[in-house]
Amino acid sequence: MSKGTLIIISGPSGSGKDTVMKELFKLMPELKFSISSVSRAMREGEVQGEKYNFISRDEFLKMIENNDLLEYNEYCGNFYGTPIKPVNDCIENGQEILLELDVNGAYNVRKKCNDCFSIFIMPPSFEALKARLVSRGTETAEAIEKRLKAAKDEIERAGEYDYIVVNNVLSETVADIATIIKSERMKSDRVSVTL
Amino acid sequence: MSKGTLIIISGPSGSGKDTVMKELFKLMPELKFSISSVSRAMREGEVQGEKYNFISRDEFLKMIENNDLLEYNEYCGNFYGTPIKPVNDCIENGQEILLELDVNGAYNVRKKCNDCFSIFIMPPSFEALKARLVSRGTETAEAIEKRLKAAKDEIERAGEYDYIVVNNVLSETVADIATIIKSERMKSDRVSVTL
Repeated sequence: MSKGTLIIISGPSGSGKDTVMKELFKLMPELKFSISSVSRAMREGEVQGEKYNFISRDEFLKMIENNDLLEYNEYCGNFYGTPIKPVNDCIENGQEILLELDVNGAYNVRKKCNDCFSIFIMPPSFEALKARLVSRGTETAEAIEKRLKAAKDEIERAGEYDYIVVNNVLSETVADIATIIKSERMKSDRVSVTL
Repeated sequence: MSKGTLIIISGPSGSGKDTVMKELFKLMPELKFSISSVSRAMREGEVQGEKYNFISRDEFLKMIENNDLLEYNEYCGNFYGTPIKPVNDCIENGQEILLELDVNGAYNVRKKCNDCFSIFIMPPSFEALKARLVSRGTETAEAIEKRLKAAKDEIERAGEYDYIVVNNVLSETVADIATIIKSERMKSDRVSVTL
């Protein structure tokens, strides 16, 4: 059986990435998702084991010590990381596994991994990005400014990715990502040539 | 305006490439096609300037001398080549231009060109390949054997291409190539990032 593929997806806060990902898994249920381990507290609406495995700081430190993580970083005092075993299992089973990472995580995984490709989800405009962040209505003006600055910094590194998808219309964005994934399946090193 | 892209398509005799190309241009009429210059005589059913520009051997030699060709080769005493000007014009105009080449032509163009990608069209099986060649009913058993051998040699180099598309069902093959072309449009170096 041919080996699987690691698909990295990034997008700044306000790019609409979460909704895109949800719809993508509906369209391509064969895709696997890498559940991150995090040491921060669970927020309202979050479910254990859905997008994140919430573990203690000590448990996280143990994972680091045991080399159980493909990548990790500390952000605002909390650890975020990608457990390596589910990723390796998918690759061995010839499956495609999606990793939702920030630009630094993406950079680190890209360096380590042979058979992966990466997609950056772009907000359609600065105004749309700002509007999305403001419409959440849960953050102070200062927090929004901070997120905007972070988003700009991430967007500046979009060129590090293999593909850039501009999230104008949700259904089109999802279709575009599906197009990329299907196209990548036809890469010559993933097709077995026997006649 | 962003620069255009050169798309190389190859496929051995009997892969069904010609039919695939015809259908592809119906589906994506925005694609340009590079008309080869050839020094051989026109065959029945061929139209001047459709797939080939038929020119004399002397005219061809002049094109070589003037560096008017992106690539060329001699096959069975006849010259085949890709005029460079239409290709450059398309690239400058931000268009996509398809070059139908054999494995050697593809190899030579790939070396010279910065922004190109290549697709190899595979026959679904050796039997299908043989059946297609025999069904033409125009060639001797010996000529068919020669074509089969040449096809096998080309297929062995399929790994040099970026993508491999197996031509099982015509409509699916055409859709697959369209998927690749659309996906390549989202490559980060072809997307202008301005926010």
